[in-house]
Amino acid sequence: MPEEKKISMAVIRRLPRYFRYLHDLLKLDIKRISSRELSERMCITASQIRQDLNCFGGFGQQGYGYNVESLYNEISRILGVDKRFTCIIVGAGNMGTALANYENFKKRGFDIVAIFDVDPAKIGGKINGIDIYSMDTLEDFVKQHKVDIAMLTVPNRTITEVAEKVTSVGIKGIWNFSPHELRLGEDVVVENVHLSDSLMVLGYRLRSKGY
Amino acid sequence: MPEEKKISMAVIRRLPRYFRYLHDLLKLDIKRISSRELSERMCITASQIRQDLNCFGGFGQQGYGYNVESLYNEISRILGVDKRFTCIIVGAGNMGTALANYENFKKRGFDIVAIFDVDPAKIGGKINGIDIYSMDTLEDFVKQHKVDIAMLTVPNRTITEVAEKVTSVGIKGIWNFSPHELRLGEDVVVENVHLSDSLMVLGYRLRSKGY
Repeated sequence: MPEEKKISMAVIRRLPRYFRYLHDLLKLDIKRISSRELSERMCITASQIRQDLNCFGGFGQQGYGYNVESLYNEISRILGVDKRFTCIIVGAGNMGTALANYENFKKRGFDIVAIFDVDPAKIGGKINGIDIYSMDTLEDFVKQHKVDIAMLTVPNRTITEVAEKVTSVGIKGIWNFSPHELRLGEDVVVENVHLSDSLMVLGYRLRSKGY
Repeated sequence: MPEEKKISMAVIRRLPRYFRYLHDLLKLDIKRISSRELSERMCITASQIRQDLNCFGGFGQQGYGYNVESLYNEISRILGVDKRFTCIIVGAGNMGTALANYENFKKRGFDIVAIFDVDPAKIGGKINGIDIYSMDTLEDFVKQHKVDIAMLTVPNRTITEVAEKVTSVGIKGIWNFSPHELRLGEDVVVENVHLSDSLMVLGYRLRSKGY
């Protein structure tokens, strides 16, 4: 995707949000929207929206606004929502179980094909129809199935070891639910889910309203 | 906090990340850091860092960099990490259970004092020592305890009803784990956790590396 090289990660990180809003607008059969209306709905400044959307071509027209469908299609293309990723969950605890039951991932192109754990009581079971395997079989599984992403929901004390294990068998994408920053190879892509960050922003916003 | 009014939400949303990195630096006994080093660690451009940190006073000195402790203290003050928030979880499913077991929240000032559910099999039980109550008792509970935040981990089909219920009894902060955008009163603060967004960014980054 050489033409996307110049889009900054800050813009990329906002694209899923544009994608969701535009998807909602399409469902409501709204054909066009001004940056101002989009701004009000998304709570992003209109100038930020114009700047973001200019990054990947001029879809806005003065006095007309944005064509919702074109913009949605273009953002979908950049995000690659038609692509499919094969995912595994490592850690069949509560968070792992919650993820295995999350219906939205499949819609977005992420297929969870297996769950791994070390607990003999869990191995051999299923969550939402997905088999739970022993960590000992991970390497063989990855040899037989191309796995793009490992969703790591293991206890904090084992996260480093588990992350090293999954990358050593060739998995390149890590979705990390632990608060630890993982330092893995240059060729590994890590996205961290820091739930506390969102909660701290909520706390800030409550305080700034005087609650 | 009138002096913080001019800090944009985009900057505020990055503050928890600065907070975490600076906290790690302090633990490593690192006293100062240049915007360039911080940039490399955080994968944010140095100019973005300078711009962000300039928003709340000039802590950087040419040729010296940032004093880690001052910067950490200032960001802590803005984020209000010394403040405590009383929280409840609504929905004792897997995500609710995962949150109730998440040790980091308390450290960041968020005390989970009760869990609510509608399932008679769960009501009366405990998760991580926290009592599970019937939704029918929510109003009375909130009258007796000041509750700042409701963490909503209920099924999608009930999210709107539950959000209306918790705000009708006076809770002003909503941490929403459903993919639905909640439209509540102007006086209610909603933070949405869109797990798929982070996963979509991971997918984008994998594709842009050619995997």
